[in-house]
Amino acid sequence: MVETLRVAILGATGLVGQRFVSILSHHPWFSLEALYSSPEKAGARYGDVVEWAIDDRPDSWIWRVKLRKLDPEAVAGEKFDVVFSALPSEVASKVEPVMARMGVRIVSNASNLRMDPDVPLLNPEVNAEHASIAETQIASRGWRGWVAKVPNCTTAILTLALKPLHDEYGVKRVLVATMQAVSGAGLRGVSAVQITDNIIPYIRGEEEKVERESRKILGGLEEGKITLSPIQVSATTTRVPVLDGHLEAVFAELEEEPGSRGEVERVLEEFRGNKLRGLNLPSAPERPIVVRREHDRPQPRLDRMEGGGMSVVVGRVRLDPVAGGVKMVVLGHNTIRGAAGNGVLIAELMHRLGYL
Amino acid sequence: MVETLRVAILGATGLVGQRFVSILSHHPWFSLEALYSSPEKAGARYGDVVEWAIDDRPDSWIWRVKLRKLDPEAVAGEKFDVVFSALPSEVASKVEPVMARMGVRIVSNASNLRMDPDVPLLNPEVNAEHASIAETQIASRGWRGWVAKVPNCTTAILTLALKPLHDEYGVKRVLVATMQAVSGAGLRGVSAVQITDNIIPYIRGEEEKVERESRKILGGLEEGKITLSPIQVSATTTRVPVLDGHLEAVFAELEEEPGSRGEVERVLEEFRGNKLRGLNLPSAPERPIVVRREHDRPQPRLDRMEGGGMSVVVGRVRLDPVAGGVKMVVLGHNTIRGAAGNGVLIAELMHRLGYL
Amino acid sequence: MVETLRVAILGATGLVGQRFVSILSHHPWFSLEALYSSPEKAGARYGDVVEWAIDDRPDSWIWRVKLRKLDPEAVAGEKFDVVFSALPSEVASKVEPVMARMGVRIVSNASNLRMDPDVPLLNPEVNAEHASIAETQIASRGWRGWVAKVPNCTTAILTLALKPLHDEYGVKRVLVATMQAVSGAGLRGVSAVQITDNIIPYIRGEEEKVERESRKILGGLEEGKITLSPIQVSATTTRVPVLDGHLEAVFAELEEEPGSRGEVERVLEEFRGNKLRGLNLPSAPERPIVVRREHDRPQPRLDRMEGGGMSVVVGRVRLDPVAGGVKMVVLGHNTIRGAAGNGVLIAELMHRLGYL
Amino acid sequence: MVETLRVAILGATGLVGQRFVSILSHHPWFSLEALYSSPEKAGARYGDVVEWAIDDRPDSWIWRVKLRKLDPEAVAGEKFDVVFSALPSEVASKVEPVMARMGVRIVSNASNLRMDPDVPLLNPEVNAEHASIAETQIASRGWRGWVAKVPNCTTAILTLALKPLHDEYGVKRVLVATMQAVSGAGLRGVSAVQITDNIIPYIRGEEEKVERESRKILGGLEEGKITLSPIQVSATTTRVPVLDGHLEAVFAELEEEPGSRGEVERVLEEFRGNKLRGLNLPSAPERPIVVRREHDRPQPRLDRMEGGGMSVVVGRVRLDPVAGGVKMVVLGHNTIRGAAGNGVLIAELMHRLGYL
Repeated sequence: MVETLRVAILGATGLVGQRFVSILSHHPWFSLEALYSSPEKAGARYGDVVEWAIDDRPDSWIWRVKLRKLDPEAVAGEKFDVVFSALPSEVASKVEPVMARMGVRIVSNASNLRMDPDVPLLNPEVNAEHASIAETQIASRGWRGWVAKVPNCTTAILTLALKPLHDEYGVKRVLVATMQAVSGAGLRGVSAVQITDNIIPYIRGEEEKVERESRKILGGLEEGKITLSPIQVSATTTRVPVLDGHLEAVFAELEEEPGSRGEVERVLEEFRGNKLRGLNLPSAPERPIVVRREHDRPQPRLDRMEGGGMSVVVGRVRLDPVAGGVKMVVLGHNTIRGAAGNGVLIAELMHRLGYL
Repeated sequence: MVETLRVAILGATGLVGQRFVSILSHHPWFSLEALYSSPEKAGARYGDVVEWAIDDRPDSWIWRVKLRKLDPEAVAGEKFDVVFSALPSEVASKVEPVMARMGVRIVSNASNLRMDPDVPLLNPEVNAEHASIAETQIASRGWRGWVAKVPNCTTAILTLALKPLHDEYGVKRVLVATMQAVSGAGLRGVSAVQITDNIIPYIRGEEEKVERESRKILGGLEEGKITLSPIQVSATTTRVPVLDGHLEAVFAELEEEPGSRGEVERVLEEFRGNKLRGLNLPSAPERPIVVRREHDRPQPRLDRMEGGGMSVVVGRVRLDPVAGGVKMVVLGHNTIRGAAGNGVLIAELMHRLGYL
Repeated sequence: MVETLRVAILGATGLVGQRFVSILSHHPWFSLEALYSSPEKAGARYGDVVEWAIDDRPDSWIWRVKLRKLDPEAVAGEKFDVVFSALPSEVASKVEPVMARMGVRIVSNASNLRMDPDVPLLNPEVNAEHASIAETQIASRGWRGWVAKVPNCTTAILTLALKPLHDEYGVKRVLVATMQAVSGAGLRGVSAVQITDNIIPYIRGEEEKVERESRKILGGLEEGKITLSPIQVSATTTRVPVLDGHLEAVFAELEEEPGSRGEVERVLEEFRGNKLRGLNLPSAPERPIVVRREHDRPQPRLDRMEGGGMSVVVGRVRLDPVAGGVKMVVLGHNTIRGAAGNGVLIAELMHRLGYL
Repeated sequence: MVETLRVAILGATGLVGQRFVSILSHHPWFSLEALYSSPEKAGARYGDVVEWAIDDRPDSWIWRVKLRKLDPEAVAGEKFDVVFSALPSEVASKVEPVMARMGVRIVSNASNLRMDPDVPLLNPEVNAEHASIAETQIASRGWRGWVAKVPNCTTAILTLALKPLHDEYGVKRVLVATMQAVSGAGLRGVSAVQITDNIIPYIRGEEEKVERESRKILGGLEEGKITLSPIQVSATTTRVPVLDGHLEAVFAELEEEPGSRGEVERVLEEFRGNKLRGLNLPSAPERPIVVRREHDRPQPRLDRMEGGGMSVVVGRVRLDPVAGGVKMVVLGHNTIRGAAGNGVLIAELMHRLGYL
């Protein structure tokens, strides 16, 4: 890569922001130029205010970067090639449209805009072709920039595992119970008093996101707009005392009956996300889906970093006549594949497709 | 109660054995006369060899009880009114039939014999009437005693929550994902290295037990034998870093559509296990099912001791058109309702019905 | 008790406030008349806004109590017999002196005022005689009420274990490393992301409190004022992934050499806090110090509720020539003996001594 | 390195064995030729019987290696350049001397022989010069091989942090309370039922090892034998719910008073283990001691992998007049610096010194 792209992070001190920092501090294409934060932290050095909470350590120069105050006009004025947003949704819903109108290209992890039919909600191996609706977005909204969205973490992990089954057998219905890591709620979202020796069987808004976003990600593309998939999804989402990695117990009703458990496992592990073939995206894992055949895998602590945290790991595949198809256990790293890692992959895709 | 019944515990040092000890050291009907253990511990005082691991403390005299060696003939010779077995299944499968033949009445938590059609597998509020097949057992086997079985922990909790729904709406199909406490594997079954910051998505034999035993517990009684219910159950069972309390995410397809979420909640909480009406069993909780309407309950740490650990707690009841009925979260204490507490309740029932 | 005393709680929704509620909802002497909270919660029913996080459940009427806004004049106007404060220190330092001036008698868990020489800092079995400086306080400050303080949790637990050693052998120096429960930081003080699979070797202000308050609690009383004990204390305090119960590894240099380990254990377990003899305070545990002689106790989960959470449990007593005395492990329940339970015990003492 | 050295691992399936495998599967000098295990596992492929429990994954060929039965003669016959022993001490005490007599050079993590005056107990940055007593060992015992010992994990971590203080100020006395990770007890040493929401304030034999081995490691070398250091050490060791990383709260009495906290920190971080200067040992971390000046470090999860798990991390350095010197918090990775990593470093040292 001769030319590097100038990028910035909005909301750099939170847990997803930290993952963005960690990945982007040594990315082959992207040069991290600026970190933006809330006004009370602006002006401080990153290392002095961030409550760093992940094992990965970025290159050390990052600790000395001075945080900038998030101001849409200032961001637009910098003419970054792309901006990564790890902003809270209530902030993002205010500033992202303003910045996009001013010409900023934004890959955002915030939940606003995700279901708008002209906003790409991308899980690249699954629906890279949806990227093109960025054009519809620009055209119809009169914006000079655009917003592409990172899906909800649980949904990104789920749809990646469902995609090859859907292609091969047709997925009619999915019932899923999740066991989600505490890091999914951010640095201070779950307190130790709440979760020690405990499970909280509720995550605000999560089930609706899974049910809704799955249908968009697996949906079609007609005349520049996304059409929702008819797949039916029902979820119960819970929080468990695990640091990183969302585990999902999936029951999938299929249109065609698979021949055997082994066949399903092969369909899963041979999936390559053909839409990315030949693009050589640096963050795309060699195997988007890793299948484990042991009886007791995947396990969050042992398997969440598979493919650098970008692969989902599927195990315990069983033909399930009661569910009308298969049941399986799916694991993915919630702040990498489910957030920052997927965000960077999306930006890489948008670049290869000519949108950066 | 003028007369007290003489009881003993087999396998008193394990985790379920400890719960039996804790409950029976101060029971209004039962007088705990003897503790049996494996040969290597026999002869020692209970307090010197037990690795006591539960918060509850039994009356202190129990620590000084001398452990006896488990010998079927010796047990039979003691003519206890009832004997509680917390033996490992491989031991139980050898000694329980021998003792029953010799006249011992056994309430057993071990998994052997559970699916035999003439062996009562009891969750008293659900299927107290199955107790009568003890007579078939005695008659057909030529035994002088009998064996009644405590169901698998996960199944006991599940079927208690399903029973009122089945009575009211008809349950056709159940898909369930469980999050099970480490105490379910016994004192040393799950190591800290395995489960710290982790989930193990597999428990040996558990899914088969849930799928099979549910059909027996919810089954009918015809000519002295149990007929299996046509209910279809598919389970994915996992182990989570929680000490006590199994949480189950249940998706139930119903034959009749409930009118509303509130109606389902009322059906659940008004359930009283009518089969126990008037029996005044000391271990029967006033409310077998406690319904929580908050959005984030039940939680293992906060709710597992509801009804002294004998109630199941149901929350997050939602009508679910995708599942074709309802989804809900069910919690129960695995070593009380799911094991020792249920065992004592079964013995109380057998006594009231005249089998002790 | 013919007459009951009217009491109120300030800061009722936090974790220490919850413990006060739990204890006072069924206290033999005290009738809980009012709960005060921050303005944003005032007006709501307690059950609707409290994030209840403890296993103990108070009587159910408490859920329906309407929270009152904390207003010093209104509190004073109610003429409660005593008011329990679980306020944050920065709030307490503003309102407690104002209320005391107006005549309110306050037993407070907040850290302000603790080191003032005319403010009783009470661990009743250790220094009940310090209660009398409330008179100095009233006289010198011209207040109509008074403030008595609950010591820092770690310090209360430590000084209770040190007192009999100090009486018997003379304690010159204490080096202590603590492992403190997450509940010590309140409902949201420690996040799960921080503490999962981790230890945080720092607690703000804690070491200074232990070092300072120990000297006051073990200090003398001269002419109505406390004189600090010459005991030297150095602490390193850490936060560990345990819900309740502070564990302290204590190395104590003694003036006189104990005869044997057994002798030290007897000195500890025979301690009765003679200053409370004959007062029959309901919250005083029969044995303030419980000694465990097993090699692996005390353990937080198994021992923290000893004496209803009011006893400290000491184990692993060893003569230690390197330390110049003894080493031992001390455990106490941080929100009961270390906070609310001790607060109620202090109020009971003040009542018996005629200050209520 | 032109020539590679042929090595083997004894006890390859345990947790320390796994760390040896992980490090040696891609070591620049050592070629891993064989894995030995207990008879019941011998013959199986490594990947089929190991309960792999660490995040690190070795090169994949290792899974297919067939385990050999541990037979001293067979091991000797292979003429490995060095053999790494992660055997349980009771096995090691039988086979290690036999193999050494036959000519095997053994670097062993087992606790037998550690205190023998002619057996090197090595923490290379601290006491590399002790390596030479291998010659005494060979000469006096008439062995053709030798045994060098890896110190107890807690002791290795502690003595590394003490060494520069000892050199600079003279350490007279150390009181230390430890918080040790569950992995220190091996794969199944601590059960989840025991440690969930809990601390176990006892580790069998650990305190004696710390007190004894510290004096040998910091001891002198006279006429080919180790003389024990007069340093006095007293320890209380506890087990906490943390996966990896032992944390130690250290109080050190010094002969000379340090000038300032900053001076002590510099003394620590400037320590390079001069005895290794110029040897270029691949496993020697650039900085044996990393000093953190933040108020809340070191933390096990964030800092245990410092220097690839071979550095100790020291924080919270404070001058402590009560202890008569300094207090500080020391962290090290118990299965890397405290076991397998140190073992490999020792072998590298022995090679450079000409003993391989």
